[in-house]
Amino acid sequence: MNGAQSLVHTLIKSDVEVCFTNPGTSEMHFVAALDSVVGMRCALCLFEGGATGAADGYYRMARKPASTLLHLGPGLANGLSNLHNAKKAHSGIVNIVGEHAIDHIALNAPLTSDIEGIARPVSHWVRSSKSSKVVAQDGADAVAAANHPAGQIATLILPGDTAWGEAGNPAEKVNAVAKSPIDFQKVLQSQQALSKTNRGLILVGGDALEPHHLLSLSGVTAKMGCSLMSDWANSRMDRGAGRISIERIPFAVDKALELLKKFDTIVLIGASPPVAFFAYPGKPGVLSQPGTNFIALASIGDDIDQAIDLLADTVKSNGPCLDWIVKPVLPIIPTGDITPSLVGAVLGALMPENAIVVDESVSTGREFFSLTSGSPQHTWLYNCGGSIGYGLPVATGAAIACPDRKVIALEGDGSAMYTVQSLWTMARENLDILILIFSNRSYNILKGELKNVGVIDPGPIATKMLSLREPDLDWLSLSKGMGVDACLVKSGEQLVKAMKIGLAFKGPYLIEIEL
Amino acid sequence: MNGAQSLVHTLIKSDVEVCFTNPGTSEMHFVAALDSVVGMRCALCLFEGGATGAADGYYRMARKPASTLLHLGPGLANGLSNLHNAKKAHSGIVNIVGEHAIDHIALNAPLTSDIEGIARPVSHWVRSSKSSKVVAQDGADAVAAANHPAGQIATLILPGDTAWGEAGNPAEKVNAVAKSPIDFQKVLQSQQALSKTNRGLILVGGDALEPHHLLSLSGVTAKMGCSLMSDWANSRMDRGAGRISIERIPFAVDKALELLKKFDTIVLIGASPPVAFFAYPGKPGVLSQPGTNFIALASIGDDIDQAIDLLADTVKSNGPCLDWIVKPVLPIIPTGDITPSLVGAVLGALMPENAIVVDESVSTGREFFSLTSGSPQHTWLYNCGGSIGYGLPVATGAAIACPDRKVIALEGDGSAMYTVQSLWTMARENLDILILIFSNRSYNILKGELKNVGVIDPGPIATKMLSLREPDLDWLSLSKGMGVDACLVKSGEQLVKAMKIGLAFKGPYLIEIEL
Repeated sequence: MNGAQSLVHTLIKSDVEVCFTNPGTSEMHFVAALDSVVGMRCALCLFEGGATGAADGYYRMARKPASTLLHLGPGLANGLSNLHNAKKAHSGIVNIVGEHAIDHIALNAPLTSDIEGIARPVSHWVRSSKSSKVVAQDGADAVAAANHPAGQIATLILPGDTAWGEAGNPAEKVNAVAKSPIDFQKVLQSQQALSKTNRGLILVGGDALEPHHLLSLSGVTAKMGCSLMSDWANSRMDRGAGRISIERIPFAVDKALELLKKFDTIVLIGASPPVAFFAYPGKPGVLSQPGTNFIALASIGDDIDQAIDLLADTVKSNGPCLDWIVKPVLPIIPTGDITPSLVGAVLGALMPENAIVVDESVSTGREFFSLTSGSPQHTWLYNCGGSIGYGLPVATGAAIACPDRKVIALEGDGSAMYTVQSLWTMARENLDILILIFSNRSYNILKGELKNVGVIDPGPIATKMLSLREPDLDWLSLSKGMGVDACLVKSGEQLVKAMKIGLAFKGPYLIEIEL
Repeated sequence: MNGAQSLVHTLIKSDVEVCFTNPGTSEMHFVAALDSVVGMRCALCLFEGGATGAADGYYRMARKPASTLLHLGPGLANGLSNLHNAKKAHSGIVNIVGEHAIDHIALNAPLTSDIEGIARPVSHWVRSSKSSKVVAQDGADAVAAANHPAGQIATLILPGDTAWGEAGNPAEKVNAVAKSPIDFQKVLQSQQALSKTNRGLILVGGDALEPHHLLSLSGVTAKMGCSLMSDWANSRMDRGAGRISIERIPFAVDKALELLKKFDTIVLIGASPPVAFFAYPGKPGVLSQPGTNFIALASIGDDIDQAIDLLADTVKSNGPCLDWIVKPVLPIIPTGDITPSLVGAVLGALMPENAIVVDESVSTGREFFSLTSGSPQHTWLYNCGGSIGYGLPVATGAAIACPDRKVIALEGDGSAMYTVQSLWTMARENLDILILIFSNRSYNILKGELKNVGVIDPGPIATKMLSLREPDLDWLSLSKGMGVDACLVKSGEQLVKAMKIGLAFKGPYLIEIEL
């Protein structure tokens, strides 16, 4: 057994069952080893950002890490921005990055680079294997790092000779560190602080957003007379009719400030103090009121189950507040031209039970969340790292994790271009994904941001840098070029018809929506 | 004048005339400033690797740096692999990377990342601006760093408040460090070593590949009875009929070893000791014979003009060896099915005077170099960093640097997919680029590499990871989707006809060649 085989065996023993690959020469032993063991599903990506983003989406839905296979420093570099997003979403990922054989590194060949240096800004754990004898144990350690309760990016660098050299046995699974237990003093502090004010807020994120936790927290908030919210960007929200719906802190700074004026006490469960996405001249970055009393009851890697149970007990909750449960109310689809509201209404009205929505709708989707709140139960995935090009890859990984659920990818046209190669992987793997492209032919959000930073009358060069016209992108052709069926819609009626076709189709289907 | 305006003014005063942009919110002041000054040509790229690769291609042809405009850490990360290639090619580039306002960085907003950490592995020079008052000087320093005679990657990080705050005057151009003068002892050593052996080689790279230098070196080698070669991967070679043609060290390790067996003495001028691109089990990484006497006469940042002049004087050269000048001999185009040789012959026969060839032909192009040696004078750009996805971006930048020259991009289908978004920029800027896509529907080079690393009979999973079938990529549709006219050819006759159309057309045109 060579090192690569011992590593693949170890990954499978450690319950890593999927590999998103974009291999090169240095990874050929790993690729060959994939045939020597049963149990690793491999999906080829034509760009590395597609692989890392898919691993992010897979983790969010499967709640366990996938692996990626990347080609030396530049291959890792191409996957970096979606690793940034995954890191911010607390997704666990095991990156296997090929490297020259150890003796070859010093020769400074063309592909030689500082792989550890490239990995570190987006990785919690980085290790270069030292020999084929230890690579199995390194792999088991990498999976344990990725399985950290806060979800971690683990990057294992695999020099060629550690892959092709003679190895020992595969390593056994290494347990991840346990969730940190909750300090009961913080529970008491939370209870006391919330009981002293009528301006209290429980801000939740991470696992605290799970439906049973929100049910439980509805009882806490009813008892304490406080509010319950989440940040704007959340890794995953399971929502829809029959579940608790909670408000998100708005993206726009002024609206967020206005909302958070109401609160002088904020208990954090799996969330961080709210801050502005970007800085703007003359506007604050901290969104809460000065002097807000923050109590960090549980951070993302703590035992959030325990925190919520203890809090409910301590406040003597009367149980879930059933009034908060969302009724199954579908939006009425307006007639007329396609607008963002109309798209949101169509989505809300037609979304099937158990859909997974990957939201990279950017400026088009500001109303989508509220228009889908009474839709059948579904899961909403959002970009926590702000680097666009996350949507198509995350949809790919989510579809592989949940083959029985329809995935709906909501994509700005500008955003979708960054990782457009994912369409091909969707076609090859026949993934059940409906892709909506919001074709406004611009970086529309930036037009608003120009105003936000004080540029009132942008000149022709600035304007051209935000436009996706000249030439217009033709998404039907792009999609067809990668083997995904597509159609173009220009009216609400056409959109409804196309959505019904796309939702009924089992496989990838793309709708370009002209806005 | 705000910081962004002072920076744009400074870049223009420093002779940086082109900016390849992919901006976001944090860069809006810079974008707005582009309209306040005349003299900066801006080209929007829909993916950051397109911007950094274009800056590489621009430098190789214009011999001066362009700037890029990138959006925080993830935007830089997307441009990293082509910065790696540019670094290895010794291209000078000035990256302007937006960042949160300084006070905002500590808040750990979604897009916050260690930008300096991401920049460092591919940058020679990294600086974060500290205030709007110094950003102009920082910009001038960045350009000077990029203008280093060895060509450097300079990355200037621009926090929002340094862009929007009140600034002083633009800064004056800062001179780059001078080329290092040549140590005459090394010239003497070179002359003495070469005169003592009949197994001598002068290995040239960088500026030593300029036609007048090769002419001069032909005289040196004739006088000394030694050979003249270059490494396999060179940033730029100006070649064709009427110029000196030199052999490249082969990519394949066995062939390179066989060739270099002939030499016991190697004088390096702008080149490094030859090493294998990859490591393979049981094969050496150092390609020269053990005990080879290396004399490093001039490294890439040294005064190569002086080195070659002194060497010619010292060996008492009788002047250029005119026998070495290539005759204008065009290949004869074979009939029959399309093969790599046929494509090379068509290229060699039809290539127009002054073409710029960007070679990312990978496995298809192994014979192209020899088949074009007698073609009209042209420039050949090659990937020095080995990260694929360099071709379409480099072609973009080369076309902007040289609007009067036809650019021919030679692209493997797998390679072209990494930065396929460049086609849109070619269309928008109406760049005179003929793109040949070698559609063998596989990562063909890796099939060979599997054998090279000892995998004789790859299984179905490994085979599928190297195949680009299921579904087939359809380049006509992809190209049309981004506004570039295209055609598909399946025979030599069709290829000749399509090449003639594409070469006559002034603008981007793509030919998918089914192999």
